[in-house]
Amino acid sequence: MKKPMRIAITGAAGQIGYQLCFRIAAGDMLGADQPVVLQLIEIPPALDALRGVVMELTDCAFPLLAGTLATTDPAAGFEGVDVALLVGARPRGPGMERKDLLSANGQIFGPQGRAIAQHASPDVRVLVVGNPANTNCLITASQARGRSPRQFHAMTRLDHNRALAQLAEKTGVHVTGIQRMTIWGNHSSTQFPDLAHCTVRGEPAAKLVDEAWYRDTFIPTVQQRGAAVIKARGASSAGSAASAAMNHVRDWVHGTPAGDWVSMAVPADGSYGVAPGVVYSYPCVCASGDYEIVQGLEHGAFARERMAATEQELREERAAVESLLS
Amino acid sequence: MKKPMRIAITGAAGQIGYQLCFRIAAGDMLGADQPVVLQLIEIPPALDALRGVVMELTDCAFPLLAGTLATTDPAAGFEGVDVALLVGARPRGPGMERKDLLSANGQIFGPQGRAIAQHASPDVRVLVVGNPANTNCLITASQARGRSPRQFHAMTRLDHNRALAQLAEKTGVHVTGIQRMTIWGNHSSTQFPDLAHCTVRGEPAAKLVDEAWYRDTFIPTVQQRGAAVIKARGASSAGSAASAAMNHVRDWVHGTPAGDWVSMAVPADGSYGVAPGVVYSYPCVCASGDYEIVQGLEHGAFARERMAATEQELREERAAVESLLS
Repeated sequence: MKKPMRIAITGAAGQIGYQLCFRIAAGDMLGADQPVVLQLIEIPPALDALRGVVMELTDCAFPLLAGTLATTDPAAGFEGVDVALLVGARPRGPGMERKDLLSANGQIFGPQGRAIAQHASPDVRVLVVGNPANTNCLITASQARGRSPRQFHAMTRLDHNRALAQLAEKTGVHVTGIQRMTIWGNHSSTQFPDLAHCTVRGEPAAKLVDEAWYRDTFIPTVQQRGAAVIKARGASSAGSAASAAMNHVRDWVHGTPAGDWVSMAVPADGSYGVAPGVVYSYPCVCASGDYEIVQGLEHGAFARERMAATEQELREERAAVESLLS
Repeated sequence: MKKPMRIAITGAAGQIGYQLCFRIAAGDMLGADQPVVLQLIEIPPALDALRGVVMELTDCAFPLLAGTLATTDPAAGFEGVDVALLVGARPRGPGMERKDLLSANGQIFGPQGRAIAQHASPDVRVLVVGNPANTNCLITASQARGRSPRQFHAMTRLDHNRALAQLAEKTGVHVTGIQRMTIWGNHSSTQFPDLAHCTVRGEPAAKLVDEAWYRDTFIPTVQQRGAAVIKARGASSAGSAASAAMNHVRDWVHGTPAGDWVSMAVPADGSYGVAPGVVYSYPCVCASGDYEIVQGLEHGAFARERMAATEQELREERAAVESLLS
């Protein structure tokens, strides 16, 4: 039996956390031969509910679940963890300005970055799910002294999967027939879901769908899918967000399939003209537990404009939290 | 690629359904090589929410998900299904007598039994999760003319898993080291969790725990675990109930491990003196897609009394719904 991996989840008693806990314990994220210890973190008002989640996890008699911890203390919660899923975030309240939202979340993610730096495993992988995810990730990484910024990602995999699903529906091809989808930029409505390099059963997607559908239907549908789910379900995406988070970590740890790539928001390194200083979603391939940004893709004027617009939003978010960056 | 299996879930937009949908689509129930079509059934007020669940399932880009259906029509929902998980049930309202509750649920499960008989696959397996599960199952089976009652089970696997977890905690042995747990009778507070044949790392459990703990702590803790989860979590067991339902179906379809058994509420056939006419939880082994009740276990006076008490409750439930049985 492999040594258990320690997985921290913040906001673990929330709707996304409640999906993550059971699926990770069942082996959906790291595989059917990988035992896990779940280190679940909540704010004090949710601690009783979190204890209830731990009771239920225990009651599942999961063969792979090697231990659980329910805590409000980040130091204990991040102790020795190999993977941290930062889900808990402050949602936008009534009358809250964007700057206030960014700042309120900075108060959460800055201390978490410091706790991760002090307590997590040296090769911890951190995925920020809580919104505004890219900038929360930037703050977390900046406060995690001694850790590589490459250990801190934000999630755009849900957008990536939504884009796959929309194209699958349009072309009548199962999602497994679609490769090389890309989400560029911010996990927000400025994100740029890009079909230019995407293939459907090996054929360029751009040959199968017309430009008007791509620009006027596909892009806004993917960008606004979260709001559409809330409208239908009366609650924000939870099952699909949890699923995407597990996809992201699985690929980061176990690698991406040959010939394909996935979208991951990672520290910008100058690739595609995006200067360092923001966490930007790129097409990435993973192998041997690490990721690389796919290089050499070409872009037309439309794509360059969209990529710049979402970068601009990230620069503005960064400016709003500059004082929280270390 | 295998042919997809069709899975119906009633109450699919509820908390248990919301756990089941994603985990089944991820392959947790039937395996990583078995595509599935999810046929999701709800009552009309929940149809919008159910459509939101389908949006999220689509947005997961699950490789194994071959199709989805959201409907309020049992005929459409059960069409061609290989497995039906009957989760949706009428909860007990304020001032509702037990007899009223049984009768209200009979109005749900009777029609579902008829729809299953008319529309489901010939070898459909039906698991009733919605409470009172054993008697709801009895009604469903009785209305499903032309189908064998053996195709209709009620779930006591959650109780079984809870019992494993309690014994694991007491003995300090991981749940995977415990075999031959049994829940007898009704999925209610009269259920009898029986340690007499149970082993812990191959040793009789009865040698490792004392009789007082067994009678005064273990049995009531397992019987009342659902209420304890509600108290902590502020909501009833959902993740653990869904997990247990998937365990039940997986074992029924793919078989139980050699040397072990599981608890399943199945039509009583006279085994252990329980006359036909009720759905009673027994130790069962599964192979080749079918189940057999484990025979030849011996019981002392304490066990016989507990087994009779839970049978008596089931006979009373049956009497209350006699008019709904075909």
